[in-house]
Amino acid sequence: MQSPQPLRNGDTTPSPHRSRFSTPQHHVQSTLSVEKLKRFNSLILLFRLTAFCFTLASSVFMLTNSTSSHWYDFDAFRYVLAANGIVTVYSLFEMGASVWEILNGATLFPEFLQVWFDFCHDQMFAYLLLSADSAGTELVKTLRRTDTCTVTSAFCLQSDIAIALGFVGFLFLGFSSLLSGFRVVSFIINGSRFCL
Amino acid sequence: MQSPQPLRNGDTTPSPHRSRFSTPQHHVQSTLSVEKLKRFNSLILLFRLTAFCFTLASSVFMLTNSTSSHWYDFDAFRYVLAANGIVTVYSLFEMGASVWEILNGATLFPEFLQVWFDFCHDQMFAYLLLSADSAGTELVKTLRRTDTCTVTSAFCLQSDIAIALGFVGFLFLGFSSLLSGFRVVSFIINGSRFCL
Repeated sequence: MQSPQPLRNGDTTPSPHRSRFSTPQHHVQSTLSVEKLKRFNSLILLFRLTAFCFTLASSVFMLTNSTSSHWYDFDAFRYVLAANGIVTVYSLFEMGASVWEILNGATLFPEFLQVWFDFCHDQMFAYLLLSADSAGTELVKTLRRTDTCTVTSAFCLQSDIAIALGFVGFLFLGFSSLLSGFRVVSFIINGSRFCL
Repeated sequence: MQSPQPLRNGDTTPSPHRSRFSTPQHHVQSTLSVEKLKRFNSLILLFRLTAFCFTLASSVFMLTNSTSSHWYDFDAFRYVLAANGIVTVYSLFEMGASVWEILNGATLFPEFLQVWFDFCHDQMFAYLLLSADSAGTELVKTLRRTDTCTVTSAFCLQSDIAIALGFVGFLFLGFSSLLSGFRVVSFIINGSRFCL
């Protein structure tokens, strides 16, 4: 159960407790542990970056979707834009937190708060994004039977693209949620966000 | 870390290992543990039962929603019915599994399989139900601006009720998901679906 622990929040100097174990073998294990944590955090960062790119692209596509009709005339499109915008800002913040953690080896908030904050928000925003994109999909399907889509197909095509981008964003937010869920479980098990 | 363990799958007789610890104090703790497990399982059963009732009611409301218009003419309403139907069947199965566990003190499937099966399906079906109900909500909103709702408001009202019931079902499926998530974490921590 006990494995070499990576650095905790703000914990940059070795404690007297740790120094008892500072044999060469322990040093190698500790380095390996920190390396694995860095790789794990880099993977989370990659997922966050992808979710950020797709939700940002989705927001931009929806925001500029004004030909003969305007996106703000439809509740569902406003919902899509709001959900994607929120996830874009959240992903940007989480990317900053990940970069901070990779560079400093410690979480931005206290570790307990950070792992629960990440997991709960990932879950909540994944539900929000899925709900918005589902509503948006249904609206576009309905619009296809009306003049809005037959007169200017560009409006509906751009809406389709925005929603599809949002779904991809949801997918990567889901992957991030799996990894942040793993961090929560690790934290519960051995008091650290990462267990070897 | 080690706590008195409730019965595992199919494990109804005390093992020789257990008999080493069968002091009166251990017996009291073990009884307490089994009692707590029963209460926990009863709570899950209550959530499953509520989710079952609401998704069944939602399915029935949608299935009988045929006045001047018919539910099967709209993709989103078919999606709502399918999602609620799936969750109804799933909840019924899970209720059976819970009752089995409460009566026999052991899981229906092997414990490892059962906790992961419950959690993964809870998560997946919660996403499915939310997506369907969001799409249904958007469709009803759109229909309100058309003749379908102005001529016979009963059709749209019944759709609204069916979708609202589906959302309540989603809420209770979400609660079940929290508890099954707790069982997964407990299982990972100490090899049992329930930790004191």
